[in-house]
Amino acid sequence: MSALELSARALAALPEIAPGDDLAALIAAAGADLRPGDVVVLSQKIVSKAEGRLVSLGDVSPSERARDLAAALAKDARAVQVVLDESADVLRAERGVLITRTRHGFVCANAGVDHSNVPGDDVVCLLPRDPDASARRIRGGLGGEAAVLIADSFGRAWRLGQADVAIGCAGLAPLDDRRGTPDAEGRELIASVDAVADQAASAAALVRDKAGREAVVVVRGLERYVTAEDGPGAAAIVRPLDEDLFG
Amino acid sequence: MSALELSARALAALPEIAPGDDLAALIAAAGADLRPGDVVVLSQKIVSKAEGRLVSLGDVSPSERARDLAAALAKDARAVQVVLDESADVLRAERGVLITRTRHGFVCANAGVDHSNVPGDDVVCLLPRDPDASARRIRGGLGGEAAVLIADSFGRAWRLGQADVAIGCAGLAPLDDRRGTPDAEGRELIASVDAVADQAASAAALVRDKAGREAVVVVRGLERYVTAEDGPGAAAIVRPLDEDLFG
Repeated sequence: MSALELSARALAALPEIAPGDDLAALIAAAGADLRPGDVVVLSQKIVSKAEGRLVSLGDVSPSERARDLAAALAKDARAVQVVLDESADVLRAERGVLITRTRHGFVCANAGVDHSNVPGDDVVCLLPRDPDASARRIRGGLGGEAAVLIADSFGRAWRLGQADVAIGCAGLAPLDDRRGTPDAEGRELIASVDAVADQAASAAALVRDKAGREAVVVVRGLERYVTAEDGPGAAAIVRPLDEDLFG
Repeated sequence: MSALELSARALAALPEIAPGDDLAALIAAAGADLRPGDVVVLSQKIVSKAEGRLVSLGDVSPSERARDLAAALAKDARAVQVVLDESADVLRAERGVLITRTRHGFVCANAGVDHSNVPGDDVVCLLPRDPDASARRIRGGLGGEAAVLIADSFGRAWRLGQADVAIGCAGLAPLDDRRGTPDAEGRELIASVDAVADQAASAAALVRDKAGREAVVVVRGLERYVTAEDGPGAAAIVRPLDEDLFG
């Protein structure tokens, strides 16, 4: 494969993931056949399940604020409480939509809390507590030569549809900063920082069956961005608050 | 290739594109070797050049508003005037950043106007006037069996780095609306509309050399989203104004 070709391939379905499961071992058993420089993209949901990041709504006592928001948004007050617990800030709460900034700094609907593909009617799934640490741990379990991304589907402010982004990253440069390098005319490129990890997550999303258990995708052809070190992780993709024009 | 595998491959470099050039013919000459169901992703820049969407700043007389904005943002008032001419609305003008809603409805920096990879020091490049029409025309020129996307790199509100999105689309379902279909637990998926065209554009971006002339990428493996009809185009991805929480 040339440097200018990329492939994304979904692995065989994994079994239902339970707290404590060894995802690296399950990925190897699913026939990953990894090469150095591959990027293994896991859905957030299986990582969260393996880490036991599940909450039974029956165990949640909503605060007054959660009850008020839930009434305004026509949501379950207990689920809103879980979202608030995961959030550093509420950006928007209107028209049935709750957009928050998570404790990690991600801006998304419901702090990434949801209950699709989660067993149990009253159980919701949270994002991993430290998705970059999760990615590093899984990378280590896979031998350290492939990079690991943890992907989740985020809505976008002005565009319909969800696109996958990287919420955890180990061993892949999350951004490719080409500012200062010349364009084809020999002039400096102005605003050229490429979202490598997020775009790799989006490529993987196109082959993942979100209604099923094909939760792991191997992306090949990004060797030039794969590093020996785990690197700064997806935390480096979060736009600093003092550069945020839309908070 | 199975249904759950995708590839993205950059074509050989095209010559510098001039107004009136036949992009479909140039793509065929670059060894595209297209199959039915392929998705041909073109950079916005070459489409705009072929359509003559270039403006010499020497021909622009900035208005008072453009001069005021330019002074506040430390930009060229003539370039700001071009951005305003392309915009329906200014969302943010601060910290050196001008975010507008284009006449097509896209929210992005500088209405998509830039001057990288454009010959001439005082020439800027605009987005195509009707990128969906451009995509349909190129699709027709390619025989109509492959889909066509026109991609541009957009910044994101809360995340660093630019990701490619589709600003023009013909023959590919831009969104995959799976709301109402069951998840692995047999429950209804709640918020599951996938940004197919945007994610395909992002996959293509990972193999495109933005500093060079490898401006066309063929994505294979999305046959299930490729349609005989040209379809609603990228216009269908624009979030309606009355659902916009961040305008």
